[in-house]
Amino acid sequence: MSTEPPALLAADWGTTNFRLFLFSADGEIIARHNANIGLKNLGVLSFEQALSSVMKEDFARPDLPILLSGMVGSRTGWKEAPYVPCPAGAKEIVAGIVDAPSDRLKVKIVPGLSADADHPGIKNVMRGEETQIFGLSQKHGDGVFVLPGTHCKWAVVHDGTIQGFSSYMTGEMFQVLKRHSILGDLMENDVDDEAAFTLGVDRAMADKSFLSLVFSARTEGLFGNIKPESLSSYLSGLLIGSEIRAESLRHGIRPVTLIGAGSLITLYKRALNHTGFTDVTEIDGDEASSAGLWALAQQGKLI
Amino acid sequence: MSTEPPALLAADWGTTNFRLFLFSADGEIIARHNANIGLKNLGVLSFEQALSSVMKEDFARPDLPILLSGMVGSRTGWKEAPYVPCPAGAKEIVAGIVDAPSDRLKVKIVPGLSADADHPGIKNVMRGEETQIFGLSQKHGDGVFVLPGTHCKWAVVHDGTIQGFSSYMTGEMFQVLKRHSILGDLMENDVDDEAAFTLGVDRAMADKSFLSLVFSARTEGLFGNIKPESLSSYLSGLLIGSEIRAESLRHGIRPVTLIGAGSLITLYKRALNHTGFTDVTEIDGDEASSAGLWALAQQGKLI
Repeated sequence: MSTEPPALLAADWGTTNFRLFLFSADGEIIARHNANIGLKNLGVLSFEQALSSVMKEDFARPDLPILLSGMVGSRTGWKEAPYVPCPAGAKEIVAGIVDAPSDRLKVKIVPGLSADADHPGIKNVMRGEETQIFGLSQKHGDGVFVLPGTHCKWAVVHDGTIQGFSSYMTGEMFQVLKRHSILGDLMENDVDDEAAFTLGVDRAMADKSFLSLVFSARTEGLFGNIKPESLSSYLSGLLIGSEIRAESLRHGIRPVTLIGAGSLITLYKRALNHTGFTDVTEIDGDEASSAGLWALAQQGKLI
Repeated sequence: MSTEPPALLAADWGTTNFRLFLFSADGEIIARHNANIGLKNLGVLSFEQALSSVMKEDFARPDLPILLSGMVGSRTGWKEAPYVPCPAGAKEIVAGIVDAPSDRLKVKIVPGLSADADHPGIKNVMRGEETQIFGLSQKHGDGVFVLPGTHCKWAVVHDGTIQGFSSYMTGEMFQVLKRHSILGDLMENDVDDEAAFTLGVDRAMADKSFLSLVFSARTEGLFGNIKPESLSSYLSGLLIGSEIRAESLRHGIRPVTLIGAGSLITLYKRALNHTGFTDVTEIDGDEASSAGLWALAQQGKLI
């Protein structure tokens, strides 16, 4: 750990994960910490207690500015920071920052964003991703940012402003279909089968009916066309392909920046490359979160 | 109960349901019986034991011909009756009938059907529905038959032959999303809300991205646009609408015959009427099964 004095404590605080970053006055990360205090794991702890439990003594100054992003700002979080409508740039996001109630700590929370969906009246929402996207766009400029996960987001940034975004239930759909539907029944000893995955992507790209096509994750097993250990890869390809198809129809093929890490990013990169998205930049999710928290703290004059 | 001697015992024997029909020599139904011996409820009983348990003494002649349809002919059933490929008429279905092993009873099982899906190489399958469709087409002629359920089927009959069909995971998708995904979290005290249902149908008919649109069953609740008690109707509308959209794209709007009973049929009829399918005939599922079993027994010279 650096000997520089901390100037900002910031964290991406979600339903599952908590990622803390301690910054020096010049924006250098002098400490990082991940903790198992996602919203669903808080138990009887208050948000203030949970946060205090991970603040080491050497940076537990009561006047240290603290900035949080993610589900901690939702209705069931520490304090609701209402969704800011897109288009939203630094000014709009900063204006939506709220103070969290605390006797001992100086805590502020970044708002989530909402955006109009294709259908009049329907909104998409995000919490946490806006900070990641904003941070990267400050560093790398405009573009299309793709954030795979339980509910994958595709966001468009232009002139430093998040113009809008779409949500896809891809990750959660994969989990519930695999665990709770008949599609999981024939799956066994899953392996990462690239051929089965890209077959699923190809079929989804050519498809007009998700509810019919997805059933092929059963029939292809029944007829022995795809082995039990490869059916999971095939289903994953169908779902990610269906998402990429929709984005291709909406915006065409463009350079994209993938935010995240691990096997899910590998699958998205594979599917994107396979469907003509050859210009794909990968950026680690923690790097995106820390860049966004720092940039918003500066813009919001917390430091 | 009639005093006529029974000439045929037939049953639609599925995963959940068992529906028995006892026919006189002229095809009149002289007794019916539903029993809780679906495949998943058999416990330690053999198929022969389960069937014997519901055969009353007065028709338990060992030489009484017995014809079964449904999942009882699947790989995990009494005896596998391999799928017969479409197009399939009486001749092809009858040729696929198999004998079930039994020391005491004369049991035959109707095969399921397979059909090519839109994507080269993918198959759709059905078991039990082929008997219903065949029975109705014998009585009412050619047409498009829609069989809502866990995996809804749309079948086209021309010249007395089942030309092909599509499967949709609509019913199961509704159940798993409602019970196991975030979409069920905001649902409370479900009511049948026709306005929310048709809103879902309309949006699905105009949609190109299922994985994005379906997430609106959460955001519409979050923003208070749809009440907690109506979100289930809205999700149901999204799913049934998505299915009808796909069939409209494939085959256009045509007269259809809905097979089944109960609230699911009411919902499908409402969605079909709302989307321009104004010529909809409803036929009870039991009537369809009994008509099909009788017709196949005659064509197969069981009686």
